[in-house]
Amino acid sequence: MEPCIVMLTDFGTHDPFVGIMKGVITGISPGIQIIDLCHEIPPGDIQQASIALWQSVSYFPQGTIFLVVVDPGVGTHRRPLIIHSGGNIFIGPDNGIFTFILEKSALAWELENSNFQLPDPMRTFHGRDIFAPAAAYAARGIQGFEFGKLISKLVKIPAPRLETAIPGVIFGETLHTDRFGNILTSLGVFKPKNDGVFSFFPWVGEHPPMEINLRMANLHLQNRGKINWALTFEGIPKNQCAFIVGSSGLIEIVSNQGNAARLLGFGPGNTIELHFPMKEVLRRTP
Amino acid sequence: MEPCIVMLTDFGTHDPFVGIMKGVITGISPGIQIIDLCHEIPPGDIQQASIALWQSVSYFPQGTIFLVVVDPGVGTHRRPLIIHSGGNIFIGPDNGIFTFILEKSALAWELENSNFQLPDPMRTFHGRDIFAPAAAYAARGIQGFEFGKLISKLVKIPAPRLETAIPGVIFGETLHTDRFGNILTSLGVFKPKNDGVFSFFPWVGEHPPMEINLRMANLHLQNRGKINWALTFEGIPKNQCAFIVGSSGLIEIVSNQGNAARLLGFGPGNTIELHFPMKEVLRRTP
Amino acid sequence: MEPCIVMLTDFGTHDPFVGIMKGVITGISPGIQIIDLCHEIPPGDIQQASIALWQSVSYFPQGTIFLVVVDPGVGTHRRPLIIHSGGNIFIGPDNGIFTFILEKSALAWELENSNFQLPDPMRTFHGRDIFAPAAAYAARGIQGFEFGKLISKLVKIPAPRLETAIPGVIFGETLHTDRFGNILTSLGVFKPKNDGVFSFFPWVGEHPPMEINLRMANLHLQNRGKINWALTFEGIPKNQCAFIVGSSGLIEIVSNQGNAARLLGFGPGNTIELHFPMKEVLRRTP
Repeated sequence: MEPCIVMLTDFGTHDPFVGIMKGVITGISPGIQIIDLCHEIPPGDIQQASIALWQSVSYFPQGTIFLVVVDPGVGTHRRPLIIHSGGNIFIGPDNGIFTFILEKSALAWELENSNFQLPDPMRTFHGRDIFAPAAAYAARGIQGFEFGKLISKLVKIPAPRLETAIPGVIFGETLHTDRFGNILTSLGVFKPKNDGVFSFFPWVGEHPPMEINLRMANLHLQNRGKINWALTFEGIPKNQCAFIVGSSGLIEIVSNQGNAARLLGFGPGNTIELHFPMKEVLRRTP
Repeated sequence: MEPCIVMLTDFGTHDPFVGIMKGVITGISPGIQIIDLCHEIPPGDIQQASIALWQSVSYFPQGTIFLVVVDPGVGTHRRPLIIHSGGNIFIGPDNGIFTFILEKSALAWELENSNFQLPDPMRTFHGRDIFAPAAAYAARGIQGFEFGKLISKLVKIPAPRLETAIPGVIFGETLHTDRFGNILTSLGVFKPKNDGVFSFFPWVGEHPPMEINLRMANLHLQNRGKINWALTFEGIPKNQCAFIVGSSGLIEIVSNQGNAARLLGFGPGNTIELHFPMKEVLRRTP
Repeated sequence: MEPCIVMLTDFGTHDPFVGIMKGVITGISPGIQIIDLCHEIPPGDIQQASIALWQSVSYFPQGTIFLVVVDPGVGTHRRPLIIHSGGNIFIGPDNGIFTFILEKSALAWELENSNFQLPDPMRTFHGRDIFAPAAAYAARGIQGFEFGKLISKLVKIPAPRLETAIPGVIFGETLHTDRFGNILTSLGVFKPKNDGVFSFFPWVGEHPPMEINLRMANLHLQNRGKINWALTFEGIPKNQCAFIVGSSGLIEIVSNQGNAARLLGFGPGNTIELHFPMKEVLRRTP
């Protein structure tokens, strides 16, 4: 089965940029399936793109080609890449956009071979001239090493805040508000065990996993007091907010059929703290 | 021929939600054609989604799979459904979203069989974990009864206002303003006969059909006076408004190359009245 | 290989219009690949659509079917067209939208044959009832002459300003601001030769080509002073603006990782002048 190409860009949909890239792809790899992951990443927002990619990759079949063009440094010396990682292929600029999806065994090559580019690539639209052709040729089976030289060290962006140094508290930050007013945070990944107890596997950093009873936890919001956990939207009283474990395993601040960001006057870039009772402490309580 | 999957959601395009659902679909049913009907339904607006679906279904080939996720009650006890109706398949929550497309012979089953869901579905993103897999398996030929138990009574939402009790008047309401400023109303369906005469087949409710000469009718707008009928945009004087029979057979309030909603200061949720001469009355006039 | 259908409209994505057109297409030509070029052309903006089309066509494989519906005159007497030009097929209204992509050898026919339309086309949605079916039938191999009578003279819109009458100056205008704040202008097409020297091939009008050293040129902005040329974004000091040769070969006003339109308080519809030293003049300089 031919792989599909998944596009993630900050090009928006008001200009023909994305469509032109699809034209280039379809000229090289006719009939290939192209899926839009998102084109509304805020211009140049590498962090948001890298997190959206991390949230999405595992839901696509192995062998998918991810064409990621959020590229504030287009035309500069940042390198254009093809990466083989986890059975998938990633194509885009070496600016940190792949920070959270790289497996240890990932291999990366620079896109240098002009046979797999449009003639005379311009310095302002590598999406069209370099990245789209690379994705289309990769779909036709061209291997990473055929594009250029192996690269040993990729650019990485700093991870969002996730600190567990103090027992009973995890420090994090708010990342992004979605269309429904749900505020995504850096706290996670949480996987449900039973009755409010979750396994916490930090998705960034080197923290050890632990078990946390969210039923007994609070989420402190910078200058906004604290909120409780809810299993589902339904469990939250109308016009109040709570935190849930969202669909990516990250904690989200939400309300029941309302807009949490608006209700709280809260958004991305704020500090949050998850306070929870330590098991050992609990045992000692008389 | 493999069917296509048509997606209608309120997820917008600023987040990767829709793309992730497509990833799930393509993992189960590789290469299937996926068509975006609309993802910009206002969050949770079941009525608007149900009308957009009603406007669209008949323009797709029979056998199409409609994947409809406007789901303010995600994670609550509303049932996830697969419906066979009119030769098509509909997948989405049992919240009334299918009210206007259900044929009398429609059959519905609850999506219960975990073989056709992602493992450990989360309570916050049934679009990804339950509905997208169901659509993809349905495309592979899994029948409704294989997903779960037959359901006898589906949730319905109230129909938009359409009242014909008083001879010579039809009461309705404005529903939705489109990108061009055209205001869709609940009045219809009208099918052209000749020279301004239309057959009126009420699209909701139990009213009998009748013939109406729109050339002699007025549309009264709540607090905005009345406007006349036009056959096409062209027939309307510049910067004035009129009503036409729109592309779905519903009356729309429009202007000629202008924005009717802005010109009138008018929008959804208002009462409108179509006044027209009754044939019988006319005959008796001396 | 089956061609793909590329859609360019002003229908936006908040209504199901585009999705409905895709339903019609897929009913006639099942499984065909449909690519969205852009649906966010401002309502009725024929010039912007015609330029977006011109920027895009050459990046699609020959044989592509371009379905272009920006149609402020829908329902009036403007003719619906199918055009064969440059190995591609173009379908849309005869309102000038194809002005910049027509080759001398182009042939156009009127879409008259009701066998290739939906039954009873309505006067308000030719995209659905006439143009989408035509694109789908063209994809199945129906030839232009089978749709209707040959047309000899197509409507054209005026070209954007591009004047070279005065030696050492090219007059132009700003056309469109993109998502990143880059301002597209009518000045071009420029193709790089070496070290700041470009060949200038006027993309509209009958001006002779010439060579221009952009390194020694200034771009005068109406009421906004003048700016210099840069090879890439990188070469521009932070928070300053410059002009570059953009990805279509047209001059664009840009900044380095900033929003030029916002920095300059500048936008479409303004006069600009490219001032450059004439070679002959230079030679005579002592």
